[in-house]
Amino acid sequence: MSEMVKVAVDAMGGDNAPVEIVKGVMEALQESDDVFVYLVGLEDAIKEELKKYQYDESRIEVVHASEVIETAEPPVMAIRRKKESSIVKALYMVKDGTCDAFVSAGSSGAILVGGQLIVGRIKGVERAPLAPIIPTENGMALLIDCGANVDAKSNNLVQFAKMGSIYCENALGIKNPRVAIVNIGAEEEKGNALVKETFPKLKECEGINFIGSIEARDIPAGAADVIVCEAFVGNVILKLYEGTATALVRQIKKGLMSTLKSKIGAALCLPALKKTLKTFNTEEYGGAPLLGLNGLVVKTHGSSKAIEVKNSILQCKVFKEQRINDRIREQLAIGNE
Amino acid sequence: MSEMVKVAVDAMGGDNAPVEIVKGVMEALQESDDVFVYLVGLEDAIKEELKKYQYDESRIEVVHASEVIETAEPPVMAIRRKKESSIVKALYMVKDGTCDAFVSAGSSGAILVGGQLIVGRIKGVERAPLAPIIPTENGMALLIDCGANVDAKSNNLVQFAKMGSIYCENALGIKNPRVAIVNIGAEEEKGNALVKETFPKLKECEGINFIGSIEARDIPAGAADVIVCEAFVGNVILKLYEGTATALVRQIKKGLMSTLKSKIGAALCLPALKKTLKTFNTEEYGGAPLLGLNGLVVKTHGSSKAIEVKNSILQCKVFKEQRINDRIREQLAIGNE
Repeated sequence: MSEMVKVAVDAMGGDNAPVEIVKGVMEALQESDDVFVYLVGLEDAIKEELKKYQYDESRIEVVHASEVIETAEPPVMAIRRKKESSIVKALYMVKDGTCDAFVSAGSSGAILVGGQLIVGRIKGVERAPLAPIIPTENGMALLIDCGANVDAKSNNLVQFAKMGSIYCENALGIKNPRVAIVNIGAEEEKGNALVKETFPKLKECEGINFIGSIEARDIPAGAADVIVCEAFVGNVILKLYEGTATALVRQIKKGLMSTLKSKIGAALCLPALKKTLKTFNTEEYGGAPLLGLNGLVVKTHGSSKAIEVKNSILQCKVFKEQRINDRIREQLAIGNE
Repeated sequence: MSEMVKVAVDAMGGDNAPVEIVKGVMEALQESDDVFVYLVGLEDAIKEELKKYQYDESRIEVVHASEVIETAEPPVMAIRRKKESSIVKALYMVKDGTCDAFVSAGSSGAILVGGQLIVGRIKGVERAPLAPIIPTENGMALLIDCGANVDAKSNNLVQFAKMGSIYCENALGIKNPRVAIVNIGAEEEKGNALVKETFPKLKECEGINFIGSIEARDIPAGAADVIVCEAFVGNVILKLYEGTATALVRQIKKGLMSTLKSKIGAALCLPALKKTLKTFNTEEYGGAPLLGLNGLVVKTHGSSKAIEVKNSILQCKVFKEQRINDRIREQLAIGNE
């Protein structure tokens, strides 16, 4: 048996809390023997939910948190004021070593701000990027950064490239991952000021497999494994990716239901279509890690169902087993010399 | 009969020149009596192509241009050195009033640089944005800016909003178009430095229907009509939009062909599916206008087929009929007082 990984899970975060959160925890415990979960949130609500299940009580502990941070609250204020919230309490548990990681479907802003303020960054890490996994035609890619640091500097992006490579290789199992920077053309002289400044630094950066610029149109086809960009652009990419896929699938369904003939055809196609669309479903990959912290913080979609919660917990296990943070410490220490 | 619109068409631009270009010109002439076309490029190649058609010779003039600007050439240098290229010659024809507009599927960089350098901007316009039309679930939206001006300032974005509104209302026929700025959250305090600076200016801007921020995920659903952003972000949106749709459709087709049952189903669905996907086809809308110039320059996809060339030529007709440039002059003059 490998080492136990202890994960704090935000029982109050997201649209489907606590029902889907607790369900996801149960599925994670079933799938792995090496997971211990702290369910953090309103004790009564959690215990009520737990009654539905039969489980090994030695592997779950409920930690009461009397406050809840709402999605719309200004993050910095929420973190400072709501000391008794599930997010703040769980982040302190990561900081003091009570647990290895924290998984939450709650307020992105509060998690990002709280992660940096409470858990703190690894020495040498200037900014902690949020790095969601996005599905591509030939598997998946890591998009880094995606929401934590708007108006980043070129040195930040170089660190994102290094941390992203480490995560991609060791947590996702992609050997010698291809690192590319998001740009508006393939040539080195293209780009805005930030990209032009970052490109030569990435070219000279040791320990990563930099393949140059990537145009946004080539992202879905899987032209790179680690896609480096500043957070505003990353956020646009992530959300547009999801929005376009959703809109297109909705329109296709509408098209399929438009005539009697197409309805019959749709019934025959459905199993094959579902299988295809499943590969484009981000829930399969778990949440987005906030990298470069003294611990692990994973942000899942606000709309997370049990499957994403489960996968995010198992992701924490891999993160610990693969010693991702030790590797980041080693790499960034070399890079900073 | 309305006034004649004279359009210079780059016979050498794009992957399918001159075949699809000349074909598109023929279709435009057939569809409208009010169009006169200058076909600019290598005379022999154009005349060879023209032999295939029967047409009214009084409505086409071939203008010989001995040089061709390749897509990979650095734009500024190409515009300065290749005075005999189709792009440079046609842009001078717009400048000196020989024609009203120029349509090209050639080098984006050369067209954008040449448009500003040769044709020149309307007095008061600081930067000329490229504004492609993107399909949405309930019609279309104008994405402005999309490639002409990286690292734009907030005042530029305010002008983009104004010009985009005018174009959207008068050329696309969308009454009182909803203007939104691309952001990473719906709240006013969200965003990078540029968006935070631009947001209040848009809020105070008269003559536009500013509805606030738009998150990228809401673009495909059609949550705004004029989508304002700086060019780097716009370029990412445009290309990712196309790339995601292409990848998804490719995967769906693969899924449909994966089993015998799904193949039979696919055959039944195909007509309905094709109709759906056609609404997401940008070629139906013509090319992207470069707004704010003393004339009109339209950039079509490098892969343009005849239909996009035809629609782009007809777009020039609407542009002239609707006096878009007069309206921009009036609005921006008010805005600059």
